Amino acid sequence: MIKVGIIGATGYAGAELVRLLFNHPEAEIAAISSVSFEGDLLNSVYPSYTKLNTQICENQEDVVERSDVVFAALPHGLSQEIAEKVINKGKVFVDLGADFRLQEEETYEKWYDGKFTNKELHKKAVYGLPEFFRDEIKNTKLIANPGCYTTAVPLGLAPAVDAGLIEMQNIICDCKSGVTGAGRSLTMTTHYPVMNEGFHPYKVANHRHSPEIEQTLSILSGENATVTFVPHLIPANRGILATCYSRLKKDISIEELQEIYENYYKDEYFVRVLAQGNVANIHNVRYSNLCDISVHIDEHTKTLVTVSAIDNMVKGAAGQAIQNMNILFGLDEKTGLEIMPPAF
Amino acid sequence: MIKVGIIGATGYAGAELVRLLFNHPEAEIAAISSVSFEGDLLNSVYPSYTKLNTQICENQEDVVERSDVVFAALPHGLSQEIAEKVINKGKVFVDLGADFRLQEEETYEKWYDGKFTNKELHKKAVYGLPEFFRDEIKNTKLIANPGCYTTAVPLGLAPAVDAGLIEMQNIICDCKSGVTGAGRSLTMTTHYPVMNEGFHPYKVANHRHSPEIEQTLSILSGENATVTFVPHLIPANRGILATCYSRLKKDISIEELQEIYENYYKDEYFVRVLAQGNVANIHNVRYSNLCDISVHIDEHTKTLVTVSAIDNMVKGAAGQAIQNMNILFGLDEKTGLEIMPPAF
Amino acid sequence: MIKVGIIGATGYAGAELVRLLFNHPEAEIAAISSVSFEGDLLNSVYPSYTKLNTQICENQEDVVERSDVVFAALPHGLSQEIAEKVINKGKVFVDLGADFRLQEEETYEKWYDGKFTNKELHKKAVYGLPEFFRDEIKNTKLIANPGCYTTAVPLGLAPAVDAGLIEMQNIICDCKSGVTGAGRSLTMTTHYPVMNEGFHPYKVANHRHSPEIEQTLSILSGENATVTFVPHLIPANRGILATCYSRLKKDISIEELQEIYENYYKDEYFVRVLAQGNVANIHNVRYSNLCDISVHIDEHTKTLVTVSAIDNMVKGAAGQAIQNMNILFGLDEKTGLEIMPPAF
Amino acid sequence: MIKVGIIGATGYAGAELVRLLFNHPEAEIAAISSVSFEGDLLNSVYPSYTKLNTQICENQEDVVERSDVVFAALPHGLSQEIAEKVINKGKVFVDLGADFRLQEEETYEKWYDGKFTNKELHKKAVYGLPEFFRDEIKNTKLIANPGCYTTAVPLGLAPAVDAGLIEMQNIICDCKSGVTGAGRSLTMTTHYPVMNEGFHPYKVANHRHSPEIEQTLSILSGENATVTFVPHLIPANRGILATCYSRLKKDISIEELQEIYENYYKDEYFVRVLAQGNVANIHNVRYSNLCDISVHIDEHTKTLVTVSAIDNMVKGAAGQAIQNMNILFGLDEKTGLEIMPPAF
Repeated sequence: MIKVGIIGATGYAGAELVRLLFNHPEAEIAAISSVSFEGDLLNSVYPSYTKLNTQICENQEDVVERSDVVFAALPHGLSQEIAEKVINKGKVFVDLGADFRLQEEETYEKWYDGKFTNKELHKKAVYGLPEFFRDEIKNTKLIANPGCYTTAVPLGLAPAVDAGLIEMQNIICDCKSGVTGAGRSLTMTTHYPVMNEGFHPYKVANHRHSPEIEQTLSILSGENATVTFVPHLIPANRGILATCYSRLKKDISIEELQEIYENYYKDEYFVRVLAQGNVANIHNVRYSNLCDISVHIDEHTKTLVTVSAIDNMVKGAAGQAIQNMNILFGLDEKTGLEIMPPAF
Repeated sequence: MIKVGIIGATGYAGAELVRLLFNHPEAEIAAISSVSFEGDLLNSVYPSYTKLNTQICENQEDVVERSDVVFAALPHGLSQEIAEKVINKGKVFVDLGADFRLQEEETYEKWYDGKFTNKELHKKAVYGLPEFFRDEIKNTKLIANPGCYTTAVPLGLAPAVDAGLIEMQNIICDCKSGVTGAGRSLTMTTHYPVMNEGFHPYKVANHRHSPEIEQTLSILSGENATVTFVPHLIPANRGILATCYSRLKKDISIEELQEIYENYYKDEYFVRVLAQGNVANIHNVRYSNLCDISVHIDEHTKTLVTVSAIDNMVKGAAGQAIQNMNILFGLDEKTGLEIMPPAF
Repeated sequence: MIKVGIIGATGYAGAELVRLLFNHPEAEIAAISSVSFEGDLLNSVYPSYTKLNTQICENQEDVVERSDVVFAALPHGLSQEIAEKVINKGKVFVDLGADFRLQEEETYEKWYDGKFTNKELHKKAVYGLPEFFRDEIKNTKLIANPGCYTTAVPLGLAPAVDAGLIEMQNIICDCKSGVTGAGRSLTMTTHYPVMNEGFHPYKVANHRHSPEIEQTLSILSGENATVTFVPHLIPANRGILATCYSRLKKDISIEELQEIYENYYKDEYFVRVLAQGNVANIHNVRYSNLCDISVHIDEHTKTLVTVSAIDNMVKGAAGQAIQNMNILFGLDEKTGLEIMPPAF
Repeated sequence: MIKVGIIGATGYAGAELVRLLFNHPEAEIAAISSVSFEGDLLNSVYPSYTKLNTQICENQEDVVERSDVVFAALPHGLSQEIAEKVINKGKVFVDLGADFRLQEEETYEKWYDGKFTNKELHKKAVYGLPEFFRDEIKNTKLIANPGCYTTAVPLGLAPAVDAGLIEMQNIICDCKSGVTGAGRSLTMTTHYPVMNEGFHPYKVANHRHSPEIEQTLSILSGENATVTFVPHLIPANRGILATCYSRLKKDISIEELQEIYENYYKDEYFVRVLAQGNVANIHNVRYSNLCDISVHIDEHTKTLVTVSAIDNMVKGAAGQAIQNMNILFGLDEKTGLEIMPPAF
């Protein structure tokens, strides 16, 4: 039984880890912490967990001490120090925050206004997108778990990139997120009467996930990829839908394209390439670790349109973190993550 | 491994059975049927099931033949004949429809405009509300699985009834249901732009669940209970919230009341009596088989107010059916039903 | 042209006054104030008002000085002093808060923990529910504008009360409100991911509108009316739906009942008694000053069920305040309030 | 008083015309028709109109006979014949359908599988987007009222096009629509439990509004514009949000861009160019004829991002039709359309 610790358990990603681990047969939550709710029952913060989880939020030291693997879901800048402690004890650290995602310190500095406090540690970090970096994940103790947009976009584009079908400059990523993406903090944007019956973009072409998306696409393509990334908020709790537009370098039929996608993901349990005639929809992946992808060609303008949908809190955060843990600990990757998305 | 058959698998209750059984370790779906979609993949009707369920809808005979237990989720009037066939083959029949719920044929006739085609069969039927009738469920092969309102209301009132606290005449049951309660059929009421930003009652004091609720309350109290029952539709997918008002026969403190409730349900895994200061909320039981109950006293008018919340598709339909199956087959009652309701 | 001042313009009731007065042909907003946003544009708080309203929030003195009528939408306890100033200047004061609604100081003290600072002033206040107190409204300068629940419930019950049909003790008022009822303040309850897909009661049998409802029903009936009042929150922006249950004192047919209701409200522009076969729905009154009422009888238990629906921000607050102003200033009551509720 | 007739009054665009005309001081509805509901009260179809509109649906002949201007909101292919009749009688015809929007018959044939039955009539039709074609509208009797997407996209791009800032090939138009865009017809897509908590594209790069958008952009630019257009459905009733991506031909500062936009629309009542720091949001234009626009530059990729928001049923249909009528009849363009969008 893997002993799991969760730092930042009362944030949305932390709370989702608790939900998913409840049904994990090979892992158990050894300790949880929260700066804001230390000493409180987690279920006083999330009443849906009443009776099923009766753990009390402790402090970070307790969590590190009692766990084999530490999941940290913290605001950026707060993970580096803890990561070092955890790694030094020979334990596994999975960071759901942003501190270890970017390989270049100057990029990190530009977007997060912070420094790499231990450059060696950063070199050890593996970007935890299993569909692309499974082998590296097996051989590390430090996982940088990707963000939600940064999971959905590359999963939607990878087969086309791999097949050399598209130009890697100025890919348009028009993305939409459910409101949980904005987290547990109260803001006017997420006040019910404001968000309900609303829909709008935010941080237009200025979101921190841009450089992270470009980094992954550059690794996949071997080129210096650039994207224009605009996120929007959907009046729904969960989900990321990424509609990406890229220029086709050559003519390709929709049948060939479909085959390339199906073939690329044929061994991936969590990716569903939808048959032609269907479109990806956040409704169909809710509460699961799945990524649905539909592919389309605009013949008129020679544009590839890919649509990918994930649950932002699962494949976009907690579920992927558990998938990474499973791989790293030698378990079947889908352990505890075989979830049928509800039909309604 | 219990072989399960589902008749009416493309209706909402049927589809929810498929979702819940996906994670049941002791049961597997042997066959499914649908009159409207015979020959079609279930996942063509419910795209969220793509790849995880690849079964094709067959006909009722196939289902009966290949199953140990048959769940039927059919419009009323269609279950009696099938039930007879199933029982005659020595198999178990769980009816999620209304045909076997009412004990009095004249009541059935009045509300459903139908007859008991086989009166002996009706005598064998056990009303599948395990928290009250667990022993009878163990010893039958024919379960009448309760409706959603008819589960939420008695669960909320039973401890008070059992303790003789309330008058059993004219209990007011003001109930609210998520839109899935209206099923998969397209209607103007459930058209998105009509339902969204709407809230209204329907079948005011004239809903078929009234006699069913009265029947259960009469059994529990040993009196001839009467209720005024008004259901409403909530602009949300799932959930029943039952706010019930009954007259207290004697003075009782809120502390005593709370203790009576906690004690009554102390061994019930699926019922959570909430601590004072909390209120039941459909949000907190979604996708799970739980029933949350909060109890309140209006000192001013000597009225007991009970609030109970369930997921109409789980504890109010498919989950309870599986709970019944578990009991009947001698399994731990919560097998496959240990689900943490999502926090968001 | 009536010069209107709004104190507390950045709260929800204040903002709704601004919206409704935009189309009022006989009134114009002379000044607005806000403690939190003094010096700011109102449209910086409510971006939907951009360009159409370009007023800056000033202070209360400015508002009092420049207005013929002052609307105050303030937390309780803050209106009494301002009211006195306004009245002393010979101007009209319409209080959308609670300070002048209750006639008995001890009731006010019990529920609001405050005192009547000027008892004479309280005697002058008229309860601004025009359908019942129109004549008094014409002859005052101080209006206590009712709350939302306290408008919907009495409007639904009045014709039955007036006709002596029902017992006035222990009327059950199961009420449901859209989320704007909780106002502009950020709370966990109104955080989008918490409220969305949720539905729950609050302040069960302990809401400040209880004594206000009882006061109105007692005036209408000449008896000491008592109610059990439980409010709930609907995941929708606007609307109050009040489902009220009362015991019929004598047999009455649904046709007679319907006629009594239609007759009672035959001259009321803002009340629509729905034909039998229909039910009141918050969807159908949104953004308007209308109150829809449907009446039903549970023959089985001799219970009258009335369902009334209003927009909580209009007939339940700002619209009714303007209706009162119109009456008081001798205008046609519906001036500026002839609004067709949107169909979707 | 202009006598207005509405053909197809029970569809969503027709119903919205009825709502908006209710407050038009210079026009009155003389007659309405509906094929499906002939002989029925309109308010039996839209109960929110009860008492305020008491008209009965008649047939098309009645409408044509009694009106000065006929609005037709019909499925494509059904307007041409009626238009001819109306024009021949010297009356005005405003087509809210698609029949007269496309100038090239072959384009119409390709996308709508129909013919121009009277080519001369098509030459007389003016595309009713007043912000661009006001002068032509003044001098016609036949208006082709634009679709919703085809209003939002060109309004968002026009100032940049006019200033020669962007390349006109392969503009990416990622658009999102509220569910009313799918109309009154019952479909599985718009069934509440399916649409709620969902978000997905439809008709990817294959929607009939593509050629219409290209036509307008080509006229505005004098070039052969091409777009990739992907519409999505938002779980909200109303609104279009168009996020458009175009390549900047030269460097321009955000301040210059902002100024170009503000200047271009400085005399347009219905267009609000939002100050930098704000984003267009469907929430802020609901129920009004306004178009909100925010402009952004991705410096990194030299991409112009424009975000425009309208209410699909108002500026995207019925409101714009009335705006056209006002212009054509010599009224102030905003007559009856001065509506403050609700803050919540």
